[in-house]
Amino acid sequence: MTRIVEVEVHDVRFPTSRTGDGSDAINRGDYSATYVELRTDGPHVGAGFTFTNGRGNELTCAAVRALSHHVVGRTLSELAAGPAAFVRSLTADPQLRWLGPEKGVIQLATGALVNAVWDLRAKSAGAPLWQLLAEMSTEELVACVDFHHISDALTPAEAAAILDKGRVGLTERLAEVARDGFPSYTTSVGWLGYPDDKVRALARAAYDEGWRAMKMKVGGDLEDDVRRAAIIREEIGPDALLMMDANQVWDVDEAIAAMARLATFGPYWIEEPTHADDVLGHARIRRAVDELTGGACRVATGEVAANRVIFKQLLQAQAIGVMQVDACRVAGVNEVLAELLLAAKFGVPVCPHAGGVGLCELVQHVAIFDYLRVGTALEGRMVEYVDHLHEHFEDPVRTREGRYLLPDQPGYSATMHPASIAEFSFPDGPAWR
Amino acid sequence: MTRIVEVEVHDVRFPTSRTGDGSDAINRGDYSATYVELRTDGPHVGAGFTFTNGRGNELTCAAVRALSHHVVGRTLSELAAGPAAFVRSLTADPQLRWLGPEKGVIQLATGALVNAVWDLRAKSAGAPLWQLLAEMSTEELVACVDFHHISDALTPAEAAAILDKGRVGLTERLAEVARDGFPSYTTSVGWLGYPDDKVRALARAAYDEGWRAMKMKVGGDLEDDVRRAAIIREEIGPDALLMMDANQVWDVDEAIAAMARLATFGPYWIEEPTHADDVLGHARIRRAVDELTGGACRVATGEVAANRVIFKQLLQAQAIGVMQVDACRVAGVNEVLAELLLAAKFGVPVCPHAGGVGLCELVQHVAIFDYLRVGTALEGRMVEYVDHLHEHFEDPVRTREGRYLLPDQPGYSATMHPASIAEFSFPDGPAWR
Repeated sequence: MTRIVEVEVHDVRFPTSRTGDGSDAINRGDYSATYVELRTDGPHVGAGFTFTNGRGNELTCAAVRALSHHVVGRTLSELAAGPAAFVRSLTADPQLRWLGPEKGVIQLATGALVNAVWDLRAKSAGAPLWQLLAEMSTEELVACVDFHHISDALTPAEAAAILDKGRVGLTERLAEVARDGFPSYTTSVGWLGYPDDKVRALARAAYDEGWRAMKMKVGGDLEDDVRRAAIIREEIGPDALLMMDANQVWDVDEAIAAMARLATFGPYWIEEPTHADDVLGHARIRRAVDELTGGACRVATGEVAANRVIFKQLLQAQAIGVMQVDACRVAGVNEVLAELLLAAKFGVPVCPHAGGVGLCELVQHVAIFDYLRVGTALEGRMVEYVDHLHEHFEDPVRTREGRYLLPDQPGYSATMHPASIAEFSFPDGPAWR
Repeated sequence: MTRIVEVEVHDVRFPTSRTGDGSDAINRGDYSATYVELRTDGPHVGAGFTFTNGRGNELTCAAVRALSHHVVGRTLSELAAGPAAFVRSLTADPQLRWLGPEKGVIQLATGALVNAVWDLRAKSAGAPLWQLLAEMSTEELVACVDFHHISDALTPAEAAAILDKGRVGLTERLAEVARDGFPSYTTSVGWLGYPDDKVRALARAAYDEGWRAMKMKVGGDLEDDVRRAAIIREEIGPDALLMMDANQVWDVDEAIAAMARLATFGPYWIEEPTHADDVLGHARIRRAVDELTGGACRVATGEVAANRVIFKQLLQAQAIGVMQVDACRVAGVNEVLAELLLAAKFGVPVCPHAGGVGLCELVQHVAIFDYLRVGTALEGRMVEYVDHLHEHFEDPVRTREGRYLLPDQPGYSATMHPASIAEFSFPDGPAWR
């Protein structure tokens, strides 16, 4: 009976802004993590984190501390017995809820804590998280989901039916992923901060490495976007998938006008065309882009969607053709489960957001579980890949020819090297002194 | 040329949870303020704050500190010359934006800082905020609004037309408010934490004091809600307005079912029937409640609506009949202006959220400016009133027979007594030691 005895929080920041890595139309920062360690009276330490963009990482660290009394003193078996109630104790804390609710700093911190609990559960079970989840009974999985405020779109019975159906063919799907890896795309080619020749060289290199799907950032000057899209399309040929990501910079009408220009380059999706909260705006853009491209270009969003209520509406409004859950933005694994189930109900594929710090490490588990047990089809499913900062993790992602290889270490692949934590701790680590 | 030289932040908490004041279906806390003082090289101190619910107030305090470099060193004339760009420097900070965006802790902190700047501007002008705003030219007011992400619903030209039209009859409307005060309703009668006999006594007392509109909390046990509604309706008679507030506790279908029972008591509105982010859910509830009550009961929400993008959608989806902006939840006066203009464009009256700590003090300015220059009709307009904690403010609200009297001191009525700040500072003030 493992008991959590202490929550330790580390403010870890990597000085990525010095090179332009990760620069887009709206974010330019130092990729950072609010890194959480759950100390227990057992052999394992639960690791979890949330990704932030540099300044302000102290806020999510403080929020983890403010929430940690919901975790300290609890046993793993207690948390496993009432998983939705546990998450609800954090998301509906009668004083802290006001600071969200279920969004922003407090939600990011909840994600870090809940993810750390799942890492601990998976380590205790001796299984990678995707496997722990895939092998859980339908009843156990349904019990993880807080259906509050989504029951109009997904009932527990509907969720159970999806998960039961997901048992069929699971062994075959698992064998396939173990053999071939999981489809992926790379975002490392077209950050806004990169000059044209770097974009061209990176696109060519990615293609040569086997990537057949890559994403560029748009939303700066439109002529720049057009020129960079032409460069990438030249390098990758007509058949590789090219995704575009505007990081919310456009207004609704601007997005439609920009896509009228950019549609020439055959984008597979346009990501975050406008403000993350704008469900109705995304729905309008989706209809316009459908018309512009005869349905060839999808609208994608999710990395900044605060919670399952936003995702529910994006689906209800038919606003998206690709759902990009983030493993840390929402309240951790439990809420991600809710979102995978919602997506399955509405027939929209999930392509998790990754990059940042350690997001690739987490979402590979999410995507693989989704394929094995929820979505059950590979069509339209890809995990984002960014080649930053993996060296800081004990169990980093491994890719081969544009595909993620099946993670096989126990846990949620969230554990950072102690040396990295020490080196990049803010403000006292050597990297920041 | 006044220059802001320092931002001072105080964590002020009042132990309201000890008495059940402020208890509702989802919040039970200690009414608190992240209180900001802008020190200048001139004679005035700008005061601003955001309201929180106790624990976690340290997070909004820390967020104010993280944002304060956007304010320190700037001159009032500089901020007045580019007001939208100033607010955008906070809301679109390329590192901190990730923590919202424009929601939660970082948005609450932005509200406190921006409100403090407006308090300083109004004090420097020697005018109450409502007057400073009402006397600004249309061009100046339009320049305060960040139209980013709302231009599909409201253009600068449309905003200018609304504000120009608002000049007509302004003198008469002002004379009327100065004479009669501004309509109001009270929320002090029906907190969930109060026993039946206290509710009955408070409803009777409020009626006797002249209140003809009052709000009860619902969303606990439905039978309790029904019994308490009956008590209040008995005390206030059939003609006084009774509002109900569920504080987001219901799922969409639950809300509709509950209103089928509660409609008997002739509610004037149902407030926060479901999750604050659920635009489509509110729209469905609105259609159902319309049908249940023949249009007599409105759907109201807003105190937890994070930003203008959520309000825009609530209006576009015809989800609300009453818009309840909060003076601190969004990014301060500038964003409130955007929301008043959106509401006017869609013909929905604004009844600002108040209560908490000092929210009544702030929103009286908002509502009066709205009436004078934007909305221009009293029909359906009321300011919430809660009789808590006014004694801590230097320029507290004054009411007479259920109406707010026109504030006449320079500023935004945001200044707290130094003795109150000292007494209730957390954790070292005498009240908390």
